[in-house]
Amino acid sequence: MTKNGMKVLDSDMHLMEPVDLWDRYIDSKFKAIAPRGLTSENVRDLRMAHPDGRAWGVFQSKGVRSGAPNRGQNFNRNQGTYRNHSERQWTAEVQLEAMDIEGIDVAVLYPTRGLNVLSEPHMEPNFAGALARAYNNWLYDFCEKDPNRLLGAGMLSPFDIDDAVKEAKRCVKELGFRAVFLRSNIMNERNWYDAYYEPLWNTLEELAVPIGFHESSSSAARQTGDWFEPNFMLRRAVAQPMEQMLGLVAICCGGVLARHPKLRVAFLEANCTWLPWLL
Amino acid sequence: MTKNGMKVLDSDMHLMEPVDLWDRYIDSKFKAIAPRGLTSENVRDLRMAHPDGRAWGVFQSKGVRSGAPNRGQNFNRNQGTYRNHSERQWTAEVQLEAMDIEGIDVAVLYPTRGLNVLSEPHMEPNFAGALARAYNNWLYDFCEKDPNRLLGAGMLSPFDIDDAVKEAKRCVKELGFRAVFLRSNIMNERNWYDAYYEPLWNTLEELAVPIGFHESSSSAARQTGDWFEPNFMLRRAVAQPMEQMLGLVAICCGGVLARHPKLRVAFLEANCTWLPWLL
Repeated sequence: MTKNGMKVLDSDMHLMEPVDLWDRYIDSKFKAIAPRGLTSENVRDLRMAHPDGRAWGVFQSKGVRSGAPNRGQNFNRNQGTYRNHSERQWTAEVQLEAMDIEGIDVAVLYPTRGLNVLSEPHMEPNFAGALARAYNNWLYDFCEKDPNRLLGAGMLSPFDIDDAVKEAKRCVKELGFRAVFLRSNIMNERNWYDAYYEPLWNTLEELAVPIGFHESSSSAARQTGDWFEPNFMLRRAVAQPMEQMLGLVAICCGGVLARHPKLRVAFLEANCTWLPWLL
Repeated sequence: MTKNGMKVLDSDMHLMEPVDLWDRYIDSKFKAIAPRGLTSENVRDLRMAHPDGRAWGVFQSKGVRSGAPNRGQNFNRNQGTYRNHSERQWTAEVQLEAMDIEGIDVAVLYPTRGLNVLSEPHMEPNFAGALARAYNNWLYDFCEKDPNRLLGAGMLSPFDIDDAVKEAKRCVKELGFRAVFLRSNIMNERNWYDAYYEPLWNTLEELAVPIGFHESSSSAARQTGDWFEPNFMLRRAVAQPMEQMLGLVAICCGGVLARHPKLRVAFLEANCTWLPWLL
């Protein structure tokens, strides 16, 4: 843990949400249409589904479901590593125990299933906002186990900018979160330099919290990795870095940082050796 | 020109096609629907249009036409540089004269307007093939001015693989071209490692000519740069390199080079400092 007086911080640690997170936490008027996590013999099953069984937040075309069907050595090793965590339902205690093993003092927490929850195309703004609020309320309870070590990154919905502004304020002022996040490819038909988002960037400057762009290897909305469907390996190799490149171009070259010099932006889990080229 | 016994070769030189190329060279049964080049006071006007006036091969959405509306210093300089070439209608003589000025002995020739001619989405295969053949026949005539210095790269249509195979053979055996080309983003709904393209890769191995992937900053078919419309500067900054990255992933990781060890592939005009990261 603390080494030579320096704390070890993980700026991008993932947690595993319970399958019934949205069922339990979402505003009751959206409960009937909220996603459910699926389980199987795979202890790290990350799938979500609509109540009618349709897959949630992943590319679907021509009847082929995106995914990694070939289960080899890595899959088997992970089953062993995570079986106990899964049986204990990935609680905050499990998370803290894993941090102890890894020697991590403090972690900023990002979701796993939750990365895809707002990646359905053309989401209804009130519903999308409710999904984000539900996740944030659950995350608050999760972090309560040890608020000094577990730092929440709040989920924002880009589908209603007033809602995003309000939720960013709530995340910081009421829930004590230290960051908020968006996905690079979920842009509500407007790129990040669009005037539409200006109230959010203003708010984040005022709140003095960073915005983390965290992409995922899957999306039901358009994502650059789509071209490689249904080859999940190739999709995964390009989806995260290339969407982050596009996000970075929008934020830097689109003038967001010039207009908001106090805004702090992180681009997470996407390599970085492409950065010298892109800059 | 020749320096210390070494010839200077431009592997990616562009020519400027006449506005009436397809009108003059396309199979007469497609003449009524072929694209026409547009002219204006801009001596490098690259636009093409459908016979009814709709723009050809560029992104169009919400009534906003893609393009570079701000004409500044660079635009004005180019007007001066190219006015004489334009007045002389960009002939092979003009091309050879420009090569003399630049000190280039031999050049592989790629199109300018022609880069976008097959970038309409879901093209009818027979028509797409006829557009490519018309370009190639015109290019043959162009290169005839000095076949030792002007080397054609033949255009292939991916919309009918049998046609692409046949046209590749004709380009090499009848027209004397030394290369053929495709655009990375025009995939006919199948990525480059799809079995559909295997006959073409087999043919190019047999013919022993390279395939050049040459992207363009515009496309009416889906292209990664779409996200930045109508900001042409941002679109241009990402469209070519990122589509080439996607093409390279498909060709390398999709197993095309493993299956076709004699196939030679060039990725052109798209930077290369991203390559170490991508590999």
